[in-house]
This record gives sequence, structure tokens and C-alpha cells, in this order.
Amino acid sequence: MTNSTKLNVELLLTGNELMSGDVIDSNSAFIAQELGSLGLEVTRRVTVKDDLVMLSEEISHQSKRADILIINGGLGPTVDDMTAAALAMAANVEIEQHPDAMAHLLDWCQRRNYELNEPNKKQAMLPKGCDVVLNETGSAVGFTMNIHGCQVYTTPGVPSELKHMLTNQILTHIQHKFSIQDTTHVSRFQVFGLGESTIQAIVNEHLSDWPDTIELGYRAAMPNLEIKLTTHHQQAHDEKPTWHKKLTDILGAHVIGEGKISMAKSLIDVLNTQQKKVTFAESCTGGLMSSFVTSESGSSNVFEAGFVTYSNAMKTKLIDVPPATLAEHGAVSEAVVKAMLIGALNKSGADVGVAVSGIAGPNGGSDDKPVGLVWIAWGDTKDVRTAALYLPLGRRYFQQYVATAGLDLIKRHLLEIQPPPQYLDTRKATI
Amino acid sequence: MTNSTKLNVELLLTGNELMSGDVIDSNSAFIAQELGSLGLEVTRRVTVKDDLVMLSEEISHQSKRADILIINGGLGPTVDDMTAAALAMAANVEIEQHPDAMAHLLDWCQRRNYELNEPNKKQAMLPKGCDVVLNETGSAVGFTMNIHGCQVYTTPGVPSELKHMLTNQILTHIQHKFSIQDTTHVSRFQVFGLGESTIQAIVNEHLSDWPDTIELGYRAAMPNLEIKLTTHHQQAHDEKPTWHKKLTDILGAHVIGEGKISMAKSLIDVLNTQQKKVTFAESCTGGLMSSFVTSESGSSNVFEAGFVTYSNAMKTKLIDVPPATLAEHGAVSEAVVKAMLIGALNKSGADVGVAVSGIAGPNGGSDDKPVGLVWIAWGDTKDVRTAALYLPLGRRYFQQYVATAGLDLIKRHLLEIQPPPQYLDTRKATI
Repeated sequence: MTNSTKLNVELLLTGNELMSGDVIDSNSAFIAQELGSLGLEVTRRVTVKDDLVMLSEEISHQSKRADILIINGGLGPTVDDMTAAALAMAANVEIEQHPDAMAHLLDWCQRRNYELNEPNKKQAMLPKGCDVVLNETGSAVGFTMNIHGCQVYTTPGVPSELKHMLTNQILTHIQHKFSIQDTTHVSRFQVFGLGESTIQAIVNEHLSDWPDTIELGYRAAMPNLEIKLTTHHQQAHDEKPTWHKKLTDILGAHVIGEGKISMAKSLIDVLNTQQKKVTFAESCTGGLMSSFVTSESGSSNVFEAGFVTYSNAMKTKLIDVPPATLAEHGAVSEAVVKAMLIGALNKSGADVGVAVSGIAGPNGGSDDKPVGLVWIAWGDTKDVRTAALYLPLGRRYFQQYVATAGLDLIKRHLLEIQPPPQYLDTRKATI
Repeated sequence: MTNSTKLNVELLLTGNELMSGDVIDSNSAFIAQELGSLGLEVTRRVTVKDDLVMLSEEISHQSKRADILIINGGLGPTVDDMTAAALAMAANVEIEQHPDAMAHLLDWCQRRNYELNEPNKKQAMLPKGCDVVLNETGSAVGFTMNIHGCQVYTTPGVPSELKHMLTNQILTHIQHKFSIQDTTHVSRFQVFGLGESTIQAIVNEHLSDWPDTIELGYRAAMPNLEIKLTTHHQQAHDEKPTWHKKLTDILGAHVIGEGKISMAKSLIDVLNTQQKKVTFAESCTGGLMSSFVTSESGSSNVFEAGFVTYSNAMKTKLIDVPPATLAEHGAVSEAVVKAMLIGALNKSGADVGVAVSGIAGPNGGSDDKPVGLVWIAWGDTKDVRTAALYLPLGRRYFQQYVATAGLDLIKRHLLEIQPPPQYLDTRKATI
């Protein structure tokens, strides 16, 4: 068995859009994290523009340094895409049509009723002697070959295609090729409503004996925070569940759930268990709560209808908010979100619901009701709760935070969780 | 005057958190865009972990290739921060306390009533012979020195500190040092419904005399595609508008608009001009059309209400879809989306609208109605159009594509654009 931590892994990224700053590179973070799960550490990464000579020189140089080189980008059909040509140049072999790649392209086009055009055919022209790596979600295949004793893998720049290819194909290939046994264990969970510094302070205070052998990492996944626990040897693997539990116990219901789970999925699970249905009456979030829930498969069991009532008139017409309440309190008020919630519950027949009305900005604020103010109501017809939050975060992040908080609050309501989340206190609006 | 496009600029980033994937690097995109505004192109960037020998070797190698090298990160007070030591090693000079850096540190601490501690003092230890670059927002100064004929600048890893230092100090220094006048112009526009390879094929066929001096770049901004035209000298700047227009004329209404505009914003502009209001009746997109529109500020002028009618019962109850129509044709059918549209228009009083019903998957498909099938209806009460598309793209991308197509189709309807978009043909469902 190879000691995987001693393998030298490098990355090469190509793309004018990466060099110009038009695109922020998130692929290399993903690749590093996935390789990390095999105990492999990326030590160096080079990013160059789409230039055949530069690319070929880098491949040549990196393949002489590294045991594994992963190239990302440049597999598309256009003239910008020159990874195959550059790798062939570095390996000093010809480019030729690869039958497996051609078969994939033909199949890809047939399934979609496309005609295979000339630029697409270019995607089947690969360095002689390489092996094709299947792309389940895109037209561009990847490929792998050994040059200068280095195993080179090429991967697509489109993040969703990269993810499939790396996790489903390349990691397994690397594991077999280098006889790697998984020596790094990572567990992660998602948190909403607590910041990194707050959590670090909690750990410092309440878990001051946190072992060095369990690495604690944070990743902002706005509006959530992902927490990662990494261990590198058996004793630490064995101890990890205990510490994982200690930490999630302290963070309580601020923990959305284990793994990569979304707030919407975690709410859907609770609704399914309780065999209940939810509805949403949305003003400032404009459909985002409904959209979050329906972006998860299986949502149709727990969600039948949502109301996007953006204007005052529609709040009255569609979900029976009394005009007098709107006139007296204004659209962004406790009385109005209560009435929206009751109206949406009555119209949809759902068991529970959330209603929000706020000022997303950048316009529409006043001294009384500034941009960032939002009223939220949640619960069922017999038990309606409300809160006002002040979230001056910019329009889009405001909408995401409010929608996620809405899902969180109704989940806590269903589970009868006490105490309330910290953000009801720290983000409370002073009215 | 130096021709700035001929200057070779490289970046070097350092940080274990960048290599592990815990932090996504947005600094290099910012640096590239700022340098781009001076007509400077970054051709290569290297990212390494915090390792003194690796860092020093990269500095040595890059400074021999480049005219300008910008190093980001490693200026902090901890043992991980070793940029100063690595640069000194590469330049073969000593590290010594720099009086300007020390003065900055003392001032920094005094203003904040901090005591200057030993780790902080390390931030004043700089390579002999360098010049300090002021940091207005942090304790770590930057510095610059010339080695191997390359001007090296060091910058802090904290994004806000980098931004201040780069824009307020380093760009000016570079401009003077290299007598640069701004020479690069970029224009961009957004396209929906045509892929990169299709557009490249169109250019090859219809604009085969496209000049080399106008660089054509593509960026996938799913489900849109961004097209960028870059020029580097006056003659090309002058020719660019003509070619820009030639290209957008051929692409026709597949062009969403100039710059970074979203489909939603472009629809809102049309609705504003025509003083009309839109509504949406959404099944498979689950609120995403409403959410797209309301994510733009100013949407309240043109949007009052949206209906997320996920279940059959709610299609009937909220927007009057006859139960007989649902029973006869099924929820994913032309008859149902027509009825959804008319119902939503009647209930909301909007002038125009879009209704969608489809199978987002991964479950719920059948031989007759596979995952990826969607019916769309759009128009007004007097003129309802429909189309069936087949988009087997995975649940989330399916939802995004359908929602964007819905906005596109109603925009084309309002503007009475002919011919219909290509995707109505290439993505047409066979029913």
C-alpha cells in the first residue's frame, strides 16, 4: 500500500476567464477537498490562460515534479479549448479520434436530438494512447495518461460535470492505481444562525480540551456555515464521533443536519415524519421559500401551494389580509404577517406555514422601517408566533437569510424546540 | 510609454487554507480585474502552501519570467506567514527591521490602544532594500522590491486590506513605474438558449472574417452564456462596436442584453416600458420565476403576485383549473398549463403571464411523460401560446432552465419578436 500522504499532487487550471477574474475558481477547492478525503494533499496549483505553448510547458514541468496531475478546463468544443492538444504536445504524441470519445458524443447528441456539429467532433480528438474517463453529465469526456511517470487526469471546467467525473470516476481510478486506502476521515454538518467566530468562541470556552488530532474547519455556505471534522489515523477516527456529538449537542438546533443537507431538506424530513404539509406567504422573499422547498425532490408530499403576494392588493385578494390592517400598520408589520399566515393556511389547507414581509432594499426604506427590517410569522392556526429581525445584508443575501430563517423557525415549531435560535436575539429589530 | 499589453504579469498566492479547499480564492480574480483596467493581463498564477522553500523557489522562478509579480498572503504575524523570509531568500538579502514598517505598527497599535506584542513585531521584519507599501486598513504593511529585473509587490491575504492597498497604492506605483496608459477595453453581453459550440459555429460560418484583434470569450453562467469581446489597441477599440453589433444581430433575441444583465431584469425593463404587469403560475419550477423577478430591485412596479400550485388540488382551488381537465389530460399537459395561465391572469389582474407544469425528477416520470418533459404556456387572455420542451438536465438545472425560458418567452411575446427562439425547436419534446 502506498502511503498516500507522500504522493505529490499538483493541479493545473486553464481558462482566460479564470485569469481575467471574470470567474472565481471554486473547482480547485472542490478538487482539493475530494482528494483530501483520500488523504492526498495538493501542494501546488498553477493557473494559466488558454495558450497552447504555455499549457504544454506547464504540463511538461508539472508532470516531472508530481505523481498525480489533475488538469481542469479546456475540454470544450471551441478554439479556446486546447487541453488535449497541449497534453499531446507535452507527451510528444499525436492527436487522433478516440473511438470511446466519439461513441460518447454520438450517444450524447442522439439522446438530445442534436446533430453532431464540427466543433463538437473536436471533443473526440485526444492524445494517442490515453484512456477515456466518462462524463455522465456533459458532452466533453475526460481522459488520463501517464507521462514522465506522472498520472495525468483531465477534467471539465463546468463545475457540475467536474463533480460527477471526479467523485464517480477519477477518485476510484487513483485509489486503485496508487493502492490507496482511505486514511483520512471527514465528517461534516451544516449550521444556520451562528457565525464562525461565535462557534470558535464556544469551542474555546466549552470544549477547551478539544484534541489536536481532530481538525476543525469552517466553510461559509451562505447563509449556512459548514463545519468539518477531519482525522488522519485510526485512534482519532475512533474518538471523532464522541467529539462530533459534544459539539453538535452544544450548538443544539442551530445544527441543520449531518452531511451536505439543506435547511429545506431537513424541514421536508420533519414534515414527512409528522405527515404534515406546509405553505408559504411571501412578500419580500418573492417565492424563495417555495423555491427552496421545491428544489428538493420529494417535496410534493409535504407542499401543495405557496403564495407570492408582493403588492398590498394581492395580500388582500389572494390571502384575505384586511385592507384596514394594511392601512393601519403598513405592509411590513406584525399584524400583516399574522394575517398573511392565517390567510395562506386557510386557502391552502396546509397544517403549518410561514409568512414574511420586509424591506429587501436597496429602495423602500424609511427611518421607521429601514432596509433590512423583516417581520416573520410562523406556526399553525392555533399557535402563531412572530419576530422582527434587522438584516441589512444587501438584497439577495437578505432574501436568502430570511427564507432560510423562515424554514428554520417552522421546523423548530414542529419539533417544539426550546430555546429559540440565537439570531432571534442577536438580529432582533428594535421597533 | 510602455506597451502595457507586452508586460508579463504573474501572481503568487500562498496559504494552506487555499490549497486544502477550505477557502475559495477570490483575491486573484480581484487582482486580475484591477490590473485588467490598466490593460495588464495576468498570464499565470501559482498557488502554494505555506512552505518557505517552495515559496522561495516559486518567487525565484516567477521573478525570472515576469516583469511584475504580485504576491498575495503570508504577511501576518504567525509562523505560517513567511512571505518576507521567502522573498529575502529568493533575493539573497537579509531580513531586517524596517523603520517605516515599525512606525506603521506602533501607530496602528497606539490608535487602538493595543500593546505591540512579539508576533506583531515580526511584521516589521522585511527584506533589506525593499520599500514599504502602506496598509491603511490593517497591521501588515506590504512591500516592493526589484529582483531579477522583476518588480515584486507583496499584498495582504485579507480581502478588504488587499483591495485598499491594491487600488490606492500599488496600481499607481505600477502605472508610474511602467508609464502605463489604459489600453484594454472589454464589452460583454448575455445569451440564453444557444450553447457555446452553436455560437462558435455561427461565428465560423457567418463571421468568418472575424478579426484576430477582437478576442471572443465565452463564460457559462448557467443557464445563460456570457460573451466577452476584448480589444487591446485603439484601432481595435474603434472596430469593436461594428463587430459587436454584427454578432448580436445574428444571435438576435437570443441576446438577453448588454453587460451583466439577468433575464429577469431584461423582462422587468420591457414590462416597465410597456407599463404592464406579469404573473406566474408555477408547478415544476416551484416559485423560481417569481423568485428570479423579485431578486431584482424595482420588481414591485411590474409584479404583484405569483402562484405556486404544486398539487392538482391547488391548481383547481387557487387558479380555477377544471378538475375534468386535470383528470383527462394529466397535470403535465397543454390543456392544464393553458388553464393555469388563464386562471393566474384572472386572479391577479396581471396583463401577461407564464404557466409551467413538468416533471423535474428524479422521480415521477413515465414512458409517456418522462423526467425532463415540461409544458409552458405564456401570453395574455386573448393570445395564449404553448410549447412542450424536453430538458433532461437534472432537477435543479431543469428548474433554472424552465424558469429562464418562461421569462424569455413572455418577453419575446411582449416585444412581438419573430422568429421563435431556437430552443423551441432543438429542445422540442416529441409527444
